Amino acid sequence: MQRSRWGWGYEGQLDALSGAVKRASQFFGQLQSAMPVADADLELPTPRTPIPAALSAFADASPLTRARFTWGKSYTDRVRGFYGDYSIAPDFVVQPTNDEQVHQVLDVCDRLQLAVIPFGGGSSVTGGVEARPSARQRGAVTMDLSRLDQLLEVDSVSLTARIQAGIFGPALEKQLATHGLTLRHFPQSFEFSTLGGWIVTRAGGHFATVYTHIDELVQSVRMLTPQGLLETPHLPASGAGPDGNRLICGSEGTFGVVLDAWMRVRPRPRFRAGASVHFKDYWQAVAATRAIAQSGLFPANCRLLDMREAFLNQVAADGSSVLVLGFESADHSMEAGLARALEITRDFGGVCPKGPSLREGEGGERGDDSGEQWRASFLSGPYLQDAMIQAGILADTFETACTWQAFPALYEGVTQAVQAALTEVCGGGVISCRFTHVYPDGPAPYFTFLGKAKRGGELEQWLAIKNAASEALGKFGGTITHHHAVGRMHKAGYAKECPPLLAESLRAVKQRLDPHGIMNPGVLLPGE
Amino acid sequence: MQRSRWGWGYEGQLDALSGAVKRASQFFGQLQSAMPVADADLELPTPRTPIPAALSAFADASPLTRARFTWGKSYTDRVRGFYGDYSIAPDFVVQPTNDEQVHQVLDVCDRLQLAVIPFGGGSSVTGGVEARPSARQRGAVTMDLSRLDQLLEVDSVSLTARIQAGIFGPALEKQLATHGLTLRHFPQSFEFSTLGGWIVTRAGGHFATVYTHIDELVQSVRMLTPQGLLETPHLPASGAGPDGNRLICGSEGTFGVVLDAWMRVRPRPRFRAGASVHFKDYWQAVAATRAIAQSGLFPANCRLLDMREAFLNQVAADGSSVLVLGFESADHSMEAGLARALEITRDFGGVCPKGPSLREGEGGERGDDSGEQWRASFLSGPYLQDAMIQAGILADTFETACTWQAFPALYEGVTQAVQAALTEVCGGGVISCRFTHVYPDGPAPYFTFLGKAKRGGELEQWLAIKNAASEALGKFGGTITHHHAVGRMHKAGYAKECPPLLAESLRAVKQRLDPHGIMNPGVLLPGE
Repeated sequence: MQRSRWGWGYEGQLDALSGAVKRASQFFGQLQSAMPVADADLELPTPRTPIPAALSAFADASPLTRARFTWGKSYTDRVRGFYGDYSIAPDFVVQPTNDEQVHQVLDVCDRLQLAVIPFGGGSSVTGGVEARPSARQRGAVTMDLSRLDQLLEVDSVSLTARIQAGIFGPALEKQLATHGLTLRHFPQSFEFSTLGGWIVTRAGGHFATVYTHIDELVQSVRMLTPQGLLETPHLPASGAGPDGNRLICGSEGTFGVVLDAWMRVRPRPRFRAGASVHFKDYWQAVAATRAIAQSGLFPANCRLLDMREAFLNQVAADGSSVLVLGFESADHSMEAGLARALEITRDFGGVCPKGPSLREGEGGERGDDSGEQWRASFLSGPYLQDAMIQAGILADTFETACTWQAFPALYEGVTQAVQAALTEVCGGGVISCRFTHVYPDGPAPYFTFLGKAKRGGELEQWLAIKNAASEALGKFGGTITHHHAVGRMHKAGYAKECPPLLAESLRAVKQRLDPHGIMNPGVLLPGE
Repeated sequence: MQRSRWGWGYEGQLDALSGAVKRASQFFGQLQSAMPVADADLELPTPRTPIPAALSAFADASPLTRARFTWGKSYTDRVRGFYGDYSIAPDFVVQPTNDEQVHQVLDVCDRLQLAVIPFGGGSSVTGGVEARPSARQRGAVTMDLSRLDQLLEVDSVSLTARIQAGIFGPALEKQLATHGLTLRHFPQSFEFSTLGGWIVTRAGGHFATVYTHIDELVQSVRMLTPQGLLETPHLPASGAGPDGNRLICGSEGTFGVVLDAWMRVRPRPRFRAGASVHFKDYWQAVAATRAIAQSGLFPANCRLLDMREAFLNQVAADGSSVLVLGFESADHSMEAGLARALEITRDFGGVCPKGPSLREGEGGERGDDSGEQWRASFLSGPYLQDAMIQAGILADTFETACTWQAFPALYEGVTQAVQAALTEVCGGGVISCRFTHVYPDGPAPYFTFLGKAKRGGELEQWLAIKNAASEALGKFGGTITHHHAVGRMHKAGYAKECPPLLAESLRAVKQRLDPHGIMNPGVLLPGE
C-alpha cells in the first residue's frame, strides 16, 4: 500500500467514505469535485544546501521524498499538497536508523547552521513539521524518525516498556501484543503518528479520564539535544525538583529529538461495559457528563456528542445528544461502574435505547452498536477529510478545554462565532461539538466545522473561520489546544495564553539546550 | 495553645505518647532523658542588616521570633533547636498580610541584595527553610506566609477553589467544609504545613493512587517572582506547550513565592470501605500490593507495612506484614472495589482477621480498627519524634520510589545498609518500611529508623545513617525523595539523579525569574 503524498493515509481509501461525504454534502447542494496535482507535475524549489558528506549515507534529496516531508496533515497542509504547493520543501531529508546517526545530524547541522525538523508520522495539524529555517540559517533538514521503530525492552513486572520514538501506533501495539501488553494510546492519528510525536505534542489518547494525555504514560525519556543527551530517571514517581518529563512533553521538537522512552503499558482489557445514552436536552446531557466526570468512576470513554455531531456520525438522527460511555479493565468486571454511570444519566433524563453492553474476553471492542459505529467513524475521520477536500467541502476540527463553569458560554460563543464566519465566507455551514476527554474540573470540547469550499480560495476561507474560532476560544476561557499542540498555527493564541514569564523561562531553557536555535525553529515559543 | 519552639507542634502533647516511646525503648535498654534549652537562655547572632524602613510595618527582629523561624522540622533541626543552636537565625522575619506586601519584600530585598526565604508552616524535613545567604548577599530575611490564609473563591460547578498559599491544613479543610468540599490532601505534616509549601515541595498526600501528589490537584498558580507575577491559566488541562504548573511544583521557593492557587477540590466522601490484610510472607504481600496497584481499582489507601512497621504501629505483633486498604467515594458504594481487592490478596495468602468494614454517611473515618489505629499513629508521628529526642532515641524517616522490578533489591540493600550504619554508630537499632503510595510501575517505600542517641553526638550519628541510606537509594534505583523535597539535605543525591541538562535548564529558568538569586539560595539546584 502506498501512502498518499498530500492526504492522510494509504491511497484508495476514499471510495469507502462516499456515504459520509454524501451525508455532509446534503448541507451544501451542488459541489465542485477536483483531482490532486500529479506527482510528475510537482515543482520543488532548488535546495539551498547540498547534502553534507557526513550524512550522505542516510540522506535523500529526491523531489518526491522532499515533497512527502514538506507538510503535516492539517486542512491547509492537505489543500496545499492537493494543489501542488511544495514551496517550503526541506533541502533534504535524513533517515537515521540509530541514535548515533541522530547525533551526527545534530552535530553537523549545529556546525553548518542548518535547521533540523524532527518528523515522526507527519500527522501534525498545527504546522509543527515545516522546514522553515530562521533568518540566520542556511537551510532546513527534515529528520524522518520512522526507522527508529523498535520495542527495545519490556519490564513485565513494573508494566513498562522502552520504545523507540519513531514507531507508528499500529506497529507499537503489535510489538507490545506479543507480550500481552498494550499502551492503549489511540489518538485519531494513531495509524500515522509516532510515540515521539505523541510525547512532544502532549497528544490526547484513548482514555477519556485519568490517563488522558500521553504525559501520564511517560515514565522516562531520552532526548538528544544539540548540547547532548538529556535522560530522565527511570522512576515511577519522584518529588525531587520540577518534573523533567513534563518539560519534554509539549516541547514540540524545539529542545531536541526524543530517541526513546520508557512507557507505562498494561495488560490488554478483558472486561468491557458500554452504553450510548440519548438526551433530548443538551444541557441536561452536559450536566450528566459533568456528574460522571466528578464521580470517580473513571470511564475509559465518556464522549458527549451534541445533536449535530451525533447526526454527522450516524449515532442519532432525531436531534438527540448522545453520551458514549465505555468502561474497560484487564482485572475485573466493569458492570457496577457502568450501572452507576447509567443511574446518573437517568437523573438527567438520559435514556439508553439499546441497553448496556457487557463483554468479557479478548478481542473485539464494545458490542454496543453505537459505540462501534463511533469508533469506526473516529478512525476514518482523517481519511474523510481527504474525501471532503476532493469533493469541495471545507472540513476541519479544533479543540480546547475549559472549566465546567465556563463551558456553556464557550459553547454558545464559539458556535456562534464559527457559524457567523461560515456564513460569511462559505455562505453557510455546520459546526458540531463532542467532548473527547472530561476532567472533574472541566470538559475538553472538540469542534468540527464544514462549509462549501471555493476552489482556489480554501486557504483564505479556512483562515477566516480559524481566526474566528481561536479568538472565541480565548475570549471564553478555553485553551488554544487541549491535545493538538501549538506548532505554528496556534502561536498567536499560545502567546496570549502562556504567561509571559513562562515564555521567558522556556526560551531560557531553549537557549541552554539549543544555543544556535537549530531545533524546529519558529514552532511553539512566542517571539521565536 | 503555644507551638513548641524546637519541636513539632503544640506544647504539652508529649505525655500522651509515652506508650509509643516505651515500645520503642524496649529495643534500646536504659536511655538518657534530657530537657530542651529554655527560651531565656537562647543566644542569637546579631542581625547582619537592620529592618529596611519600607518593611518595618510587618517585620519582626525579636530573638524569639527569629528563633522560631530558624529551622524546619527535620530530626537534625529539632536536635539543634533542642540544644539551643540558632546560629543561622534570619536577620529578621517579615509577616506580610497581602500580595502587595509580598511584592514590597521582593522589591526591597532584590535592591538590597538580601536573600528571601519563603516560610509556610516550617515543616520542611530537608533544610528547605534555612536563612543562609549566598556569598554575595548582605543578609537573609525569612518570609512568614501564614497570614495569607484565606479561601478566596469557590467554583462549585467545576469543583475548584482559589486558596491563599499560607493557609495551614486544618484551616483549609475547615473553610472548604463550609461549602461541603474538601481538598483531601493529608500529608503527615498536615497540621503544620501550608498549601504553598505542599505545592513547591510536591508534597505527597492522602491518596495512595492517582492523585498521589499535590501536583495533580493544582489547576493554576499565581507565583510572584523578583521579575513579576507568573500566573498560569485557569484550565482543567491543556496541550499548549510544557505545563507551567509542573515547573512551579517542586521549585522549592527558588523561583518565587506562591501567592495562591486554584485547587481541585471535591465533595466530602460518603462511602467508605476498608480492610487490613495480614500476610505471613512479606514478598507475597508485596506481590498482592503490586497486583492491586496494577488492577485499576484505585484505592485511596493502599499502605503495606512490613513486619517491623506493623509492630511499631501496633497493627500486628506476630511478625505479619499488614496491607491497609481503603476505598472512598462521595458518589457510590466502594464495596465491589474492596471485594475485588480482597480477592486479589487471598490469591497471595492474605487473610483479613477482622473482615472488611463498610461505612456510609458523613463523619468519622474508616470503621476498621487497624485503619483507625493506623491513622492516629500516622498523625501523631511528628509529635512522637519530639518525644524520642527527649527520651534519647534517634528516630527519623526517609522515603523513595522505585520500579516494582527494582524494589526487592532496594528493600534488602537499603535495610542492610541502614542496619549496618545503626550498628556502627548506635550499637544497634531497627529499620522498618511501609509503602505510602503505589503506582502501576512501582511503590513509594517509606523507611523509619530508630537507634540509641549519644547525647551531644546525635548529629554525627544521624549523618552517618542518612548517608548510608541515601547512597543505598541511589545504588538500588530509588529516587532521593518521593515527596519530602530536596532542600539542602538531598542536594547531593539530587545532583546525581537530576540529568545534567535538566539541572542546566532549571538554572536557566532561575536566572530568568530571579536574576540576582535572592530566592531561597542554596536550596534544590545543583551547583547553587
